[in-house]
Amino acid sequence: MKYVIIGGVAGGAGTAARLRRMDETAEIVIFEKGKYISYANCGLPYYIGEVIKERDKLLIQTAASFKSRFNTDVRVNTEVTAIQPAEKKVTAKCSVTAEVYEESYDKLVLAPGAFPVRPPLLGIDGEGIFTLRNVSDMDAIKQYVHSGGIRRAVVIGAGFVGLEMAENLHHLGLEVSIVEKVSQILPPLDFNIAAIVQQHIRAKGVRLYLDTAVSAFERQDGEVSVKLGNGDSIEADIVIMSVGVRPDTRLALAAGLETGKSGGIVVNEFLQTSDPDIYAVGDAIEFPNPFTGKPGPAYLAGPANKQGRICANNLVAGNVQKYPGSISTAIVKVFDMTVGIAGMASKNLQKEGIRNIVSTTHGGSHAGYYPGARQLTIQIAFAPVSGRLLSAQVAGYEGTDKRLDVLASIIQRNGTVYDLAEFEHAYAPPFSSAKDPVNIAGFVADNILSGRMKVIYPCDISRLEEDTLLLDVRSPAEHDRGGIPDALNIPVDELRDRLHQLPADRKIVIYCQVGLRGYLAQRILMQSGFSRVYNLSGGYRLWEIYQE
Amino acid sequence: MKYVIIGGVAGGAGTAARLRRMDETAEIVIFEKGKYISYANCGLPYYIGEVIKERDKLLIQTAASFKSRFNTDVRVNTEVTAIQPAEKKVTAKCSVTAEVYEESYDKLVLAPGAFPVRPPLLGIDGEGIFTLRNVSDMDAIKQYVHSGGIRRAVVIGAGFVGLEMAENLHHLGLEVSIVEKVSQILPPLDFNIAAIVQQHIRAKGVRLYLDTAVSAFERQDGEVSVKLGNGDSIEADIVIMSVGVRPDTRLALAAGLETGKSGGIVVNEFLQTSDPDIYAVGDAIEFPNPFTGKPGPAYLAGPANKQGRICANNLVAGNVQKYPGSISTAIVKVFDMTVGIAGMASKNLQKEGIRNIVSTTHGGSHAGYYPGARQLTIQIAFAPVSGRLLSAQVAGYEGTDKRLDVLASIIQRNGTVYDLAEFEHAYAPPFSSAKDPVNIAGFVADNILSGRMKVIYPCDISRLEEDTLLLDVRSPAEHDRGGIPDALNIPVDELRDRLHQLPADRKIVIYCQVGLRGYLAQRILMQSGFSRVYNLSGGYRLWEIYQE
Ligand SMILES: Cc1cc2nc3c(=O)[nH]c(=O)nc-3n(C[C@H](O)[C@H](O)[C@H](O)COP(=O)(O)OP(=O)(O)OC[C@H]3O[C@@H](n4cnc5c(N)ncnc54)[C@H](O)[C@@H]3O)c2cc1C
Ligand SMILES: Cc1cc2nc3c(=O)[nH]c(=O)nc-3n(C[C@H](O)[C@H](O)[C@H](O)COP(=O)(O)OP(=O)(O)OC[C@H]3O[C@@H](n4cnc5c(N)ncnc54)[C@H](O)[C@@H]3O)c2cc1C
Ligand SMILES: CC(C)(COP(=O)(O)OP(=O)(O)OC[C@H]1O[C@@H](n2cnc3c(N)ncnc32)[C@H](O)[C@@H]1OP(=O)(O)O)[C@@H](O)C(=O)NCCC(=O)NCCS
Ligand SMILES: CC(C)(COP(=O)(O)OP(=O)(O)OC[C@H]1O[C@@H](n2cnc3c(N)ncnc32)[C@H](O)[C@@H]1OP(=O)(O)O)[C@@H](O)C(=O)NCCC(=O)NCCS
Repeated sequence: MKYVIIGGVAGGAGTAARLRRMDETAEIVIFEKGKYISYANCGLPYYIGEVIKERDKLLIQTAASFKSRFNTDVRVNTEVTAIQPAEKKVTAKCSVTAEVYEESYDKLVLAPGAFPVRPPLLGIDGEGIFTLRNVSDMDAIKQYVHSGGIRRAVVIGAGFVGLEMAENLHHLGLEVSIVEKVSQILPPLDFNIAAIVQQHIRAKGVRLYLDTAVSAFERQDGEVSVKLGNGDSIEADIVIMSVGVRPDTRLALAAGLETGKSGGIVVNEFLQTSDPDIYAVGDAIEFPNPFTGKPGPAYLAGPANKQGRICANNLVAGNVQKYPGSISTAIVKVFDMTVGIAGMASKNLQKEGIRNIVSTTHGGSHAGYYPGARQLTIQIAFAPVSGRLLSAQVAGYEGTDKRLDVLASIIQRNGTVYDLAEFEHAYAPPFSSAKDPVNIAGFVADNILSGRMKVIYPCDISRLEEDTLLLDVRSPAEHDRGGIPDALNIPVDELRDRLHQLPADRKIVIYCQVGLRGYLAQRILMQSGFSRVYNLSGGYRLWEIYQE
Repeated sequence: MKYVIIGGVAGGAGTAARLRRMDETAEIVIFEKGKYISYANCGLPYYIGEVIKERDKLLIQTAASFKSRFNTDVRVNTEVTAIQPAEKKVTAKCSVTAEVYEESYDKLVLAPGAFPVRPPLLGIDGEGIFTLRNVSDMDAIKQYVHSGGIRRAVVIGAGFVGLEMAENLHHLGLEVSIVEKVSQILPPLDFNIAAIVQQHIRAKGVRLYLDTAVSAFERQDGEVSVKLGNGDSIEADIVIMSVGVRPDTRLALAAGLETGKSGGIVVNEFLQTSDPDIYAVGDAIEFPNPFTGKPGPAYLAGPANKQGRICANNLVAGNVQKYPGSISTAIVKVFDMTVGIAGMASKNLQKEGIRNIVSTTHGGSHAGYYPGARQLTIQIAFAPVSGRLLSAQVAGYEGTDKRLDVLASIIQRNGTVYDLAEFEHAYAPPFSSAKDPVNIAGFVADNILSGRMKVIYPCDISRLEEDTLLLDVRSPAEHDRGGIPDALNIPVDELRDRLHQLPADRKIVIYCQVGLRGYLAQRILMQSGFSRVYNLSGGYRLWEIYQE
């Protein structure tokens, strides 16, 4: 059996490695148009930022090592320029020798990845404007940064890679601005969680231009003037475009393979394209989303690698393993913070017509009495009746990735908020609390679903009915340090004795710092004859962030 | 409704707090024989070690704060000395006033916890020998440590609390020895994983006496001589006994409540004792183990707190929520390392007649090319046919708690090793690799179950048949640094060209450093006419640890 693979990185090299383990006698050929295979795309920003010091570390395998380990014929610097599905051949061109030749296959795997979007803006092809996808891009950026006089960077696009680039350029001592078209960073996330990180980015001295489109670039006097939609401009020595990627479907389209609505190569659950002898994996494909059933991309290294393994299994053993789809678990370090998501943000669920309830809670990374605990924020969205967990977003410091992973594992297995409540975590003081923040998220959702807690959100506060009473149940000291305007302050511990000060006929919106005391206060009021009582989800802390 | 609760810490205070939120009008009385309620038991060792500096931080709530927040009548320094179930009364005695009185209840909750075992050894009641369970114990130890001339400590029992005490006393500058009766630390774990931590403890300069029983204590010249079973003795200035706890069932037994085989109070799935008006939670109860169905204790703060919440729900709403049982997730920091378990160790599964396959893998805490990655070891046990995950043990540094939590969440929801393989974790270089160590554990188990990889364990190596060929597929440099005696060295990358050097008729046991290259080599051999080929699970690294 002869397998030809187009693309030699996460999806392609992963498929090849597993293929070899499954079939020692197969002939395996990898075509890679770039100079390198098996490189760590995800590490590229960190080498630019000199967090990763050795370039070699990014080259996990080379053509030679892949040959000796996996007995695979790796042809770097060789682009496949066409596929002839009827003849089961590909045409390849070596960029070093300029040789063009055909190669036959029994089974073909497409793993060409995605390419960075470069919007057709005036001046975008000028000097000093870069995108980052592969090792050559990285080398080019790194060289430019050190070419002398590079002080100011503009990163366009505040997605995962954009933020990593901003941090890394800042780490090198550059003055960094981020320009983002929509009104928040990290567009796949809900606003509140993104806003927490926005504060942090600003606190680090990075300028953040939200709701800001770039209209053109002008190169003059050795610098790039980034023209903004509102007429302003930002002067920069280097510009990084990180406004997303698109699946590389050029070969697939030319070969008549089916591509889909979201722009990716269509595959069935076995990762087989519309041509039964051609499979496809990685950033280039689209796959039904587990929540909506609608096809979409993943653009993530974990799924690409997992698909590679499944694809190899199916190639060798004949469609034996289904790919379950990706819940799009993604995470990013942003300076000292970590933020991530698994599942579909509430705003996107809403767009898809999927009803969901949101709850935001804050908790310590570990026991408060053990040194070094930091607050982290968990925001979950869940189905109103079943309580099925639809997404989780976490922002914080230590232990953020842990909570996200646990939540992802529960989302992936169709778990509910009750599973969060029951989750038996590993507890000792350096690692968690007797009730983990994941448990707390579950308890609170349980209370919402059972009607024991009625919640209201930061976005509702500015449009409350005239006669609503805002009740701050924190201590007077906390109240004095800042609160939502026009709130009455009765500390929760005094509430039982001061019920007569509250109007039983008015709607009451309670808040405290994080939501816990507000809940306690609400329980007291709801059981003391007050019927229209709401607790502010995420408390004053979230409201304040929401003001961002 | 009048609720009386015996014991005011994890289980008791937790039940009371939830009770109040569920029922604002109930009368709630907590009896606590000690001076404090709601203290952080789990923090006690760290205050002794001065990692936690403020004693107040351990007192999460006080009787007064509990009163004002939860309108609960908390009676500290008051021991319940008897229960009269027929009259629905308890007898209480205040240790301050010596007053003895009765208190009636509608529903009673038992949360008396457990008490430390003090084996009836000669001299055990002498000066300088302590157990640690509550704040007074902590104060007594701390005072003694600082009473002058305390240089050498012996900790008896290498369970979770014993190790924490050893670390904390070491942190204070004491010379510490640990004496453990069985042949490993952390008896609930399998040997291999415990052995990793044993190496670490020894490297820190703590003396570890395994397989060593204590037979008596002798106090002379101001020091304690700890007499060992083998006739030796260790001189110490302070001795900490941490040889386990027993459920405090004294009141329950006297009141005629049913207790069980494992020594705990018997409760049904609603946490109700044999008397329908009496519920019980926490360390004092036994509950069917999810794997064996046999009742056993948990002795963990997470389960105690969760039980408290469920118990309150059942008390107020009438047996509405079932407790699912505990998978005994436990973790401990041991100097720079972290180690923990969820589910039942292989050796205990075996004892219970539950067939299971073990697999040990090592992986980086995060991407190897990003600074600071450390190896962690995952050992899983799973069912031979279904692949159901039965336990997971993890030892390492950063990210150990994360993997354990994810594995626990999958075990708890009856997941399989295939769920580990599919697990879509949050990946960016500072947090993980494209394939998380949890995925790798799943892949490897999948390969074992499918017969693609046949494994052999470190304990098998010393009893291999005479004619077995041991094959080291690491590089010659690695081989020279140390290996299993009498192994032939053929690096995996040369194997395909040197197959003729191997005897097709002999059994071949392959090993590499961690298991990966051994697996690759095995795939080559198995598909090249060699039929009896085994890969050493966990590789040389695990074998070396096993020699401990
Ligand atoms: C800077 C950066 C940071 C990232 N960080 C993360 C992260 O932290 N976490 C995460 O999950 N994901 C991250 N990703 C995304 C992740 O790298 C991709 O999802 C993953 O690499 C996709 O794998 P793939 O095999 O589909 O495509 P790629 O890894 O892009 O590989 C495709 C390869 O195919 C080659 N190719 C294309 N066409 C042809 C052709 N016609 N002939 C020959 N060769 C061809 C390309 O040259 C390329 O090398 C990051 C990506 C980038 C660029
Ligand atoms: C040093 C130490 C470290 C620990 N570390 C961890 C850890 O890291 N992780 C973890 O999960 N677990 C840990 N634990 C275990 C955890 O603390 C217990 O599982 C948990 O506290 C059990 O809760 P409980 O309410 O059943 O019992 P307890 O918390 O022990 O509370 C019982 C209370 O009842 C009182 N009482 C008993 N009898 C009477 C009576 N007759 N009248 C009135 N009052 C009475 C006792 O004085 C006691 O205060 C640790 C325990 C200790 C001692
Ligand atoms: C380098 C590369 C080709 C490796 O592919 P790979 O061999 O499948 O992956 P790994 O090295 O992680 O090894 C995993 C295999 O080893 C096995 N393995 C790992 N540890 C093992 C152990 N201790 N014992 C036995 N087997 C082990 C796994 O089971 C798996 O084999 P399987 O798929 O046949 O089950 C591929 O990962 C790659 O190109 N990576 C770089 C590109 C990339 O991913 N970029 C995006 C992220 S930055
Ligand atoms: C102090 C103590 C009485 C607190 O009990 P508690 O009030 O039930 O627990 P918490 O303070 O964690 O609060 C949890 C409650 O607040 C709610 N909550 C937490 N954060 C919230 C938020 N942001 N918004 C709304 N509600 C919130 C939870 O839903 C939960 O309420 P519920 O059980 O009614 O659903 C008890 O935990 C205790 O005694 N602890 C110390 C002893 C101990 O556990 N020792 C062993 C470990 S060291």
